[in-house]
Formats: sequence, C-alpha cells, structure tokens
Amino acid sequence: MIIVMKQNAKKEQLDEVIGRIRDLGYEPHVIEGESRNVIGAVGDERGKSVLQSLESMAGVEDVVPILKPYKLASREVCPESSLVEIAPGVVIGGDELIVMAGPCSVESEEQIVFTAKAVKRAGAKVLRGGAFKPRTSPYSFQGMEEDGLKLLDLARQETGLPIVTEVVNPRDVELVARYSDVMQVGARNVQNFALLKMLGQLDKPILLKRGMATTIQEYLMSAEYILAEGNRRVILCERGIRTFETATRNTLDISAVPVLKEQTHLPVVIDPSHATGHAHLVPSMSYAAVAAGCDGLIIEVHPSPETAASDGPQSLRPAEFADMMMKLKQFAEVAGRSLPAVGGE
Amino acid sequence: MIIVMKQNAKKEQLDEVIGRIRDLGYEPHVIEGESRNVIGAVGDERGKSVLQSLESMAGVEDVVPILKPYKLASREVCPESSLVEIAPGVVIGGDELIVMAGPCSVESEEQIVFTAKAVKRAGAKVLRGGAFKPRTSPYSFQGMEEDGLKLLDLARQETGLPIVTEVVNPRDVELVARYSDVMQVGARNVQNFALLKMLGQLDKPILLKRGMATTIQEYLMSAEYILAEGNRRVILCERGIRTFETATRNTLDISAVPVLKEQTHLPVVIDPSHATGHAHLVPSMSYAAVAAGCDGLIIEVHPSPETAASDGPQSLRPAEFADMMMKLKQFAEVAGRSLPAVGGE
Amino acid sequence: MIIVMKQNAKKEQLDEVIGRIRDLGYEPHVIEGESRNVIGAVGDERGKSVLQSLESMAGVEDVVPILKPYKLASREVCPESSLVEIAPGVVIGGDELIVMAGPCSVESEEQIVFTAKAVKRAGAKVLRGGAFKPRTSPYSFQGMEEDGLKLLDLARQETGLPIVTEVVNPRDVELVARYSDVMQVGARNVQNFALLKMLGQLDKPILLKRGMATTIQEYLMSAEYILAEGNRRVILCERGIRTFETATRNTLDISAVPVLKEQTHLPVVIDPSHATGHAHLVPSMSYAAVAAGCDGLIIEVHPSPETAASDGPQSLRPAEFADMMMKLKQFAEVAGRSLPAVGGE
Amino acid sequence: MIIVMKQNAKKEQLDEVIGRIRDLGYEPHVIEGESRNVIGAVGDERGKSVLQSLESMAGVEDVVPILKPYKLASREVCPESSLVEIAPGVVIGGDELIVMAGPCSVESEEQIVFTAKAVKRAGAKVLRGGAFKPRTSPYSFQGMEEDGLKLLDLARQETGLPIVTEVVNPRDVELVARYSDVMQVGARNVQNFALLKMLGQLDKPILLKRGMATTIQEYLMSAEYILAEGNRRVILCERGIRTFETATRNTLDISAVPVLKEQTHLPVVIDPSHATGHAHLVPSMSYAAVAAGCDGLIIEVHPSPETAASDGPQSLRPAEFADMMMKLKQFAEVAGRSLPAVGGE
Repeated sequence: MIIVMKQNAKKEQLDEVIGRIRDLGYEPHVIEGESRNVIGAVGDERGKSVLQSLESMAGVEDVVPILKPYKLASREVCPESSLVEIAPGVVIGGDELIVMAGPCSVESEEQIVFTAKAVKRAGAKVLRGGAFKPRTSPYSFQGMEEDGLKLLDLARQETGLPIVTEVVNPRDVELVARYSDVMQVGARNVQNFALLKMLGQLDKPILLKRGMATTIQEYLMSAEYILAEGNRRVILCERGIRTFETATRNTLDISAVPVLKEQTHLPVVIDPSHATGHAHLVPSMSYAAVAAGCDGLIIEVHPSPETAASDGPQSLRPAEFADMMMKLKQFAEVAGRSLPAVGGE
Repeated sequence: MIIVMKQNAKKEQLDEVIGRIRDLGYEPHVIEGESRNVIGAVGDERGKSVLQSLESMAGVEDVVPILKPYKLASREVCPESSLVEIAPGVVIGGDELIVMAGPCSVESEEQIVFTAKAVKRAGAKVLRGGAFKPRTSPYSFQGMEEDGLKLLDLARQETGLPIVTEVVNPRDVELVARYSDVMQVGARNVQNFALLKMLGQLDKPILLKRGMATTIQEYLMSAEYILAEGNRRVILCERGIRTFETATRNTLDISAVPVLKEQTHLPVVIDPSHATGHAHLVPSMSYAAVAAGCDGLIIEVHPSPETAASDGPQSLRPAEFADMMMKLKQFAEVAGRSLPAVGGE
Repeated sequence: MIIVMKQNAKKEQLDEVIGRIRDLGYEPHVIEGESRNVIGAVGDERGKSVLQSLESMAGVEDVVPILKPYKLASREVCPESSLVEIAPGVVIGGDELIVMAGPCSVESEEQIVFTAKAVKRAGAKVLRGGAFKPRTSPYSFQGMEEDGLKLLDLARQETGLPIVTEVVNPRDVELVARYSDVMQVGARNVQNFALLKMLGQLDKPILLKRGMATTIQEYLMSAEYILAEGNRRVILCERGIRTFETATRNTLDISAVPVLKEQTHLPVVIDPSHATGHAHLVPSMSYAAVAAGCDGLIIEVHPSPETAASDGPQSLRPAEFADMMMKLKQFAEVAGRSLPAVGGE
Repeated sequence: MIIVMKQNAKKEQLDEVIGRIRDLGYEPHVIEGESRNVIGAVGDERGKSVLQSLESMAGVEDVVPILKPYKLASREVCPESSLVEIAPGVVIGGDELIVMAGPCSVESEEQIVFTAKAVKRAGAKVLRGGAFKPRTSPYSFQGMEEDGLKLLDLARQETGLPIVTEVVNPRDVELVARYSDVMQVGARNVQNFALLKMLGQLDKPILLKRGMATTIQEYLMSAEYILAEGNRRVILCERGIRTFETATRNTLDISAVPVLKEQTHLPVVIDPSHATGHAHLVPSMSYAAVAAGCDGLIIEVHPSPETAASDGPQSLRPAEFADMMMKLKQFAEVAGRSLPAVGGE
C-alpha cells in the first residue's frame, strides 16, 4: 500500500500517519519526493480495508493499493494450472476443450432429452439447462424448479452427460447439489457472498460467472470466497460485461481470457450466448474464445428457438451447433487443444 | 412490441410472423414501409420474453419493445406519489426530507450509541448501521451479525430513531426483520430475486438500492418483484453507477432522481457516501440531490473515520455532518421540503 | 511513479531497472517488501510516458503513476480560483452565477434575436448558438456557418449579450474568433490537440467541454494544452458522460463539480441539456448543478423546440427557461452565488 | 420512426402529431393499442433529427428510430464485400489477411528501417508508424512530423512496404497524403467531421479507427461522412472501447467484427496493441480477432520497447512478432484466409 501525502502536509501529520501504519502492524518506508512525501506500508495487504481508512487522516491525499488482494486464486501462490474434474473422464483446464451446451431453461422432457442427445452427438461433454431462472421480470417464466432438475437427471441418464445448472438461493443449495454435477452461480449472484460461502463448503465443482460490472480483481475475490471455504474446484466464466454498446446484449471481454490465465490457475470458460444475445454471433465468438486460449465454452442450444420460454434469440439450433463444432475443432487444434468425438455418434 | 422485418424478407416469412404473433395472443398491425415492413404487436407486453423470441424467425431483423415492462411500480398505474411510513411520524415521500445516517458497520455499543445520538441531534430521522456486511474480500470484516442487530436495537431505545439495516441472505430475513424498521437490500443484491420475493411478503418498508450496472428499467423491475408479492412499501435508492471514471468510487447518477420521480410513484433516496467514496464530496452531492428533488438521503457518519472497520474514507465526522445539515435545510426549503429539528436538541 | 517488481524478479533485473531509472534522471528508492520489491522513482513525472515504458523490462510487473500529470491547470500550483472575464462586467468563477443560454443551432435572424432577447430578460448573461455543428450524420443540418456567425453578431448588437459559439476546425479559428466572445470546444473535440493548441494562442476565453469518455485527469490534460500555449482563460464544462444507462442521453456527472473545484482553479460550468437530452429534466439538473457548486450553466432554449433543426427534445421554451431562472436564483443564493436581474426588465 | 403517444394523450394531440408527420413528408400509420397509441412514420429516416424533435410535442412520450441511419456504408445497399487496394497487390477485404505492423512513433532512421525490414520478413504487408502523434499530455513527445514522414518514405523505399500513418489536423491532409499510402484517422478524431470530409475528397484509402466511446452505429455514420464525399476506400478498425475494467487499457470489442461484417461491406481490421495496452496480451487477441473473421490486424512492433518514446508497454519485439505470425498463419487458414510469405525471406 502506498500512502501519498498532500503537497503541504505538515511534519506532524506525516508522523501521525507513520505511527498509525506501525500500529496496524505494517512497516512504513518514507520516500521524500520533490513536492511531497510518499509512504510505502510493507506487510500483508489482505486486511487492506483498514489501511484504506488512513485516507481520512489529515495531510493524506491518497491511498494506493499495490498488491493483489486475493491469494488462493492467485497463480503466484499456485503456479500450476488447476484441473477440475466435472465427472469421470471429463476434466477442464487441461488439453481437452470442454464444451457445455443445452437450453437456457428446461421446458419439457422431450425438449431436454432431445437437446441433450443432439449436443452430445455434436461433441458437447456437459449438458447445461436452467431449472431455477433469475429473470429480470417477475412476470417472466421462472423455471420448472425441482421438476426441471428431475428432467435434467433423466437427460443425464439417457446420455451420460454430466449436468451444470444454476442455483440462485442459498436455501436450494442442497437440492440443486443433489441433482447436478456442476453448480452454476449466475452473473447476478457473483457477489452473493452468502451463496458463495455455502458453495465453498460443497465437494462439487462451481461454475462462477463474472458479473456484468465486475472487475477482474473483484471477480477473483468472489472466487476466493469459495476457495477460502475449502472448495478448490472453481471454474471461471466470462459472459459479457455491460458497456455503452447496444449492438450486442453485453460486450464479450475476450481479453479476460489471457488476463485471467495469467493471474489465476483456475480454468476459464466463455459464454458467447449471453454475451452477444444473438445466435448468429455465437459461432464467431466461440472461435475467437478458443483462439484466445479459453478452456471451455458454454453455449445455448434449443430445438426451436422461436418458441423458447427464455433467451430464444441467442440459442443455436442443433444443426447450427453441430456445424459450429466441426469448425471449432480445427481452431482448437491450432490452439493446442483437442475436441474429441465431434460430429461422431 | 415492434417487429422489424428484413429488407429482403419474403411474403411467406411475413405471414409466418403474423401468424405467430396471433398465436401468442397479440394483434398484428403491418406498416408497409418503403424498404421493409414493420409489424406492431398490440397487447400486454409484460410477457414479452416470448415475443422477443420472434427474433429467431426467418426474415426478422429486430424486435423492439415499446412499452415499459413494469406495472405496479409505474406512475401511470398509480399517479399519486406513495408515502411510506417508516415509524410513527416518520414518513418518506411527502413534504419532509428524511435523512438517514450512521456508520457503515456497527462496531461497538459505544460507537453506535454515540453516533445515533449525534446524528439525531443534527436532524437525522433514521439510524443506519450494518450488521451483515457484504464485502468484496472474504478477509475483510464481515459484520457483527446478530450482536450488531442487538446494538442497533439498543441505540434505537436510547434515541427513539428507527433503524435501517441490510439483509444479505434469505435465511436471515426473519432475524433482521425482528430488529429493524426498514430492511435494506444492497446494490449487489438488486437482482437477488429470491431475497426480493421474501421481502415482498413482509409487512415492513424495504430500502432497495440500485445496482452498479442496473438500468432504471431493470431497477424498477426489481421493485416490481417486491410489489408483486404484496409489499407496497418500497423506497428506492440511487448510490452511484459503475462507469469508466475513477476519480469517484462510482458515478452518482443524480438525473435518476427526476427520471424515477416521473416513471414511478415510489420515494427516491440518494446515497452520496457510497456513490463518491470520499467524505469531502458528500456535502455537495447531498445538496445537489435535494435540489434535484429526492425524498431523502442516506449518509455514512462515523465518530472516527480513520479507524473505521469499513468505508472510513467516505464517512463524515459528526461535526461535519451537523454542519452539512444546517446548509441542507436551506436547500431543502427552496426545494419545497422541510427538514425539522436540524441542529436543535 | 512506483515500479512494482515481480515476486520472482532476480537481483540483476532489479539492478537494471534501478539503473534505467537513474539514466532517465529520476532518483530510485527501493522498498523491500515481504513478497516483492517496489521502487519509487522520485522526480518530475510530467515526462512519464518514458517511465511507463519500464513496464517492458524483465522482472517488472507494473508501473503505477502517483502524481497528477498536469501542472498549470492544477490548484496546487495556483491555489486561487481563476476569474475569467467573458465581456466587460461578465466574469465567471466568482460570486456571480453565469447562465449562458440560446438555441442549439442558429436558424434565422428572427429565431436568434427573439431567443436572445428572451434569455436576456430571464437573466442569462451570455448567448449561446451554434453556427458550425458537428453532427453524427452527414445528412443532418450542418449549421449556417459564417451566416450564422453574422446573425449571432446581430443578436449581440440587439441585446448586448456576449456570444459563445463552437469552432470545430482549426481552419475556422480565426473566423470564429472574429465574431465570438467565447470559443467553445465541443465534447467530440476535447482531444483534438491541433485545435486546442491554436486556441491556446488566442486572447479569448475558451469553453472546453468534457468528452463523453474523458476521465477527469485526461480532461485537465486537455485544458493544459490550451494553458501551456499561453491562454489562461479556460472554462471547463461537464456535459454528461457515456454510460450503460439509456434513460438519459448521457449521464450527468455532477460529482465532477466538486472534484474539479478541488483539483483545478479553473471555473466549472454544467450543460444539463446535452447531458440529459430531455427538456423536462433540465430544470432539476440545473438546480442540482448549482447546489453542487458550479460557476455557471449553459442551457438550450428554442422558441419552438418541435421544429428545431437540431436537439429539439432537449430545448426549453423561453417561458420554461424564465420559470427555471426564478427558482434557480433561490438555489444560487443558498449556494452563496448571486444571479442578478433574473426575470426583471 | 415510431412515435409513442402518452397513455393519456388527447385526440387533438394525436391529430397534431399526425399533421406534423405529414408536413415533414412522412406517411403516418396509427396503431391503436390497449393503453396508448403508437404511430409509425414511413419514409426515408436519414433526415431523422427533425423527426426526433416531435418528442417536444404535447402528448408524445417517446420517439424510437427503427431504421439504420447510414446508407452508403450499409451492406443492404451494397451486399458485396468491398475490396480496398492499399498498393499494387496489397488488397484488404478479400482472401488474404493483411497485417500492418511497425512502431507507435517514428523515432529515427535506424529504428524505422530496422523495424520495417523485420516486420516485412515476418509477413507484414503494410508498415505503420506515427509522425503526428495525438498525445494526452502536452509535455509528451508529439511526433517527428514531416521529418517522420520522410523517414517512413525511406523505409518504404528500402522494403517496398506501403505506409499507413495518422493525420490529426485538416491542415496537414495534403502533406500526409503526399507521403502515405493509407491515411489513418485515430480514435480521438472519429467524429472530427471536418477532417473526415477532407479525407472523403482524397483518392486514397482511409483507415478509420473507432472511438473509445463510439457505438457501432455512430462509427458507421463517421464512415458515411467519408463515403458521402466520394471516397469509397474506407477500412474500419476496432481498437478497444472504454469500460470500467482497468486490467486492460481498453476493452477489445471483438464482437464488433461479426457485427460490422453483417452491417457493412467495408473491411474490418483489429488493433490489439491499443486495445490491451500490454504486449503479452497482443498475440492471443490477434488470434481471437482472426478467428472472429477480421480482414486484417494493425500491430505495434518496436526494436526496444523499454526505450520507446511512446506506447512501449504494448509493443512487441520483432522476434515476438515473428513468432506470433507463424501461429497466426495457422489460425488464418482455419478461418479461410491466407497469410503468404510468413517467416520467409
């Protein structure tokens, strides 16, 4: 932490700040500048909110954090990339590119089983589908809840695909955990710390989506909440951030892939469906994500997007998804990733 | 809802879209343009997510919503401004400007009781204080939890001030409701719909903060969640949105005051402390908020900001708060609001 | 400037960075941290782009600037608030609140003279009106150019009001300077450095608008371009920044007022018309701006907004403007500002 | 254009709006809704700023544009992708991926000639280099100006590479045109309409960078300015937009590639250097851009980034650039593009 003193700060003010830094257990180092003094406070910055309050002291102009506030999520602490096992033989973070696919919402047995078979045939390794849906409007379809979870279970039995599905309420953690292989935390819940803490106590992988206005640093702090409780199987997922641009639903921050791969050992997935909001943009953004070095993709596929209960405009039809997977396989190979069983049966 | 067809859309595609609009229970009106056709779908748009899926049909270029998706929150439906009673004699939304003040976190009996007395003396009508703290870092102080609620209760007994405090977990709703007069939903939980639904079933006012990346329309949809469950006592609170500017912690969107006052009947409060992140900016932003027509303010006050467990840099000292209230009273009067008992005892 | 070394940086890498800092004429101070070293580079940071390139050296993790890069615009260098004389007796930055008003575009003699008289009667001290219009579309009205300047001159003769008008092309600086009392730089030209340098050589006040995506710091650097050429009469103007919110045309950053007043000695004006884009939001945002401490306002007024060649939706009618000025006077007085001659004749 | 009437609008207000729509030369079509009326105004919307002013009429709630305001830039008008010839045999927009590379600023003969040879050897087809530099600070290096242009010319003679360089002042258009093969408009000048109009009269390709806060629609309107003056050789370039995220200098909006390719026939280039601000992020973002379907890249390469006069941290060393090109060639092939002569000599 760097404490910048005001140009006209008095000697006593400097001394008081130095004293306070020592009281808080940090070691002060004063750099006398031409126009003002700057103090480096050496020590573990993870309790930094207290240091930040030094800004209220007389003579202090600014308090500038220098070190990253996360630890367990950091690649410095854990240089090896983490491999997260989703199901036997389905591991994310390694050589294989993992594609998760399925409808936004589970709507019926026919819909989910049909889609599961189709995406499996095309090369997906995980089935996605929402049973609890966080919707902007209270008048929109809110998901089939436990009935939806049961249909996901059925689709898993039919196809062998593990399941990723969202949990939105700490109350439902146990229920959703019973049915799912990966628990998803949606963008709106990225700082729902009560939920994160509960998920940190599970023995199950967590797919943690970045929020629409979450910085990379805040995002890794949310991951840290889960890690700090003991669950080390966190998968990150960039799904578009909110900007001024309206041509797309959100702006997919693909540069988050190399930034995250540098700062953390956790696997990184891209969700081009929510990011763009338009199905015809999904294939090119999927190719871009893989070329940028992501470990996986999560993609919305629906047998009949024009009748979907939610997110129709951004859902690929099964045939479109299969076409995309053929091309994706080629990009994956250049990127040094395998994508086995694509297009096979 | 307006459905814009592509320039080269075929007659059959148009007919299919028209048929689908009818199937969904809306009345289609085609406007033949010079270069393309546009269809108006007349009917209640609140189920619009289904209409939105028309975008996936062949020949459709765009689907543009026209009407506001909220109803109970809308001033069209309820033209009279809502008065929300917080405690006997403390009503927000009317002539009196309601100032809520207190520390970010409850830290000790001495701290909260001292602050409560000070802010009451200066004219505050509600005491704020956090017992459950949603913190970006798992290593930061997370609040005193139930012990903090008990201290708030004590401060209420000592001063008679009603209490507003945050709830972050649906599990704690009952507990927090037992101690508080107003339940606060923080910015990070503005789309925690599980929490909103539970609060909608309470008989207690809810202070609903706008999220950092929540549009006005999404914000009113979150209010609608509470209203739709039956609780009509919702107080809105703008607390800064996330932008590219870093000179302030967030960017206070003061224009949200007149925009909200036009679109909804609910009272609107401004939180200049979280918006700016710096105590010395709080007075001028408070004056601006009152001049813009807000119904109240919520302000962080701490007896010793430089030692605060959280948010020290943005907390006013009691004397600074009292000075501000004297000036605020004058602005309030020009704005047609009263601010009784300021500076008195 | 603070240079943060990587955790695993080698001794030789540190030495090379230290040597390079010395070569560039700065004094290095090493702080040995627990996990990494940090170097303070002491010296004038205004040539900092060279220091920034240290980031490319082996072992360097980050280069963090500490000091503000502007000098002439800074209140540290010039603690006294600058008074800018616009015309004899019209001074901005002092006790009097200066209101500039008039149409977006000059459209005809009748329009501009009628509006000039109306805004003068209501208390405006400066007439605004565009002759060169930067329009997003090449098919939109581009302004009356020199004919518009002549009409502004006529309106000045009829009313005695000094004129502020925009210049968009360095080629036109001389022409516009001949007719205007204040030269306006629009938001789109805030970093048109060729234009800024030319304006820096004039003996005429410059109204420099903040860009839609310009940080406070970048904005003051743009002012510094004018100041560094010798023209010290710069007036700043916040006119809304671009955010995700679409309920208003832009988001008016009112907190920029106290931030700017703290960091610079230059006067600060608010443009609520362009910020909000809707006439009915202009009065409340004007009141808020004055309460926040601005030195002046610039407001669009048109005799017939529904037929305006540009920006009709955000233009007040003369009667609405006059009403607003009556109320504004009261807010100004509380803010310690005078607004003489309002509503009189 | 869709005009939405207020819920309680009177019959006479509707009639007046209808009359005004007719007066403006558009054909009104009223759709009677359940709660309000909506009017479609049929006709060429390119003069839409006048229609927009209908918002000021009594009873009008909102005016919603439906059609795109650009014409010459639109793929609807010109379905074939444009091929832009930069120099004999160097064509962008077709099968070949065109890579432009070179230093941010021209600094010396040795620097520019050495770099030109290096980037040519690695497969670049165009040399970039700045002679006129728009810098945020007036105290930063402002470019070598005409001397820089002469050195670029020299490098062209030595290598045969055509040159792209920036022009920032309409006054310099003729001068820069004399030396360059492609004229670059920087992000800060994307709405410098005076400059765009002059460039529209040249017979030379223009590389038009997107601004930091420019929407796709505004961006295409800027292209339209050039096209409308007669110059059809416009190359678009996404270089990062301004968002809340600070881990990268800007946020590269890669989804702009497929969005632009859908809406316009003009070629699209990506600048990963300015977008990310960090050299180590440039290769992965280049791969992503090519996978997303861009027609070319523009990349900063400097023989010694740690001593660069500008933008050192984002410049690749020649060897890093050559390595990147080898990999890029493979991604390009999967994307259906050729990248001849990479790595050869």
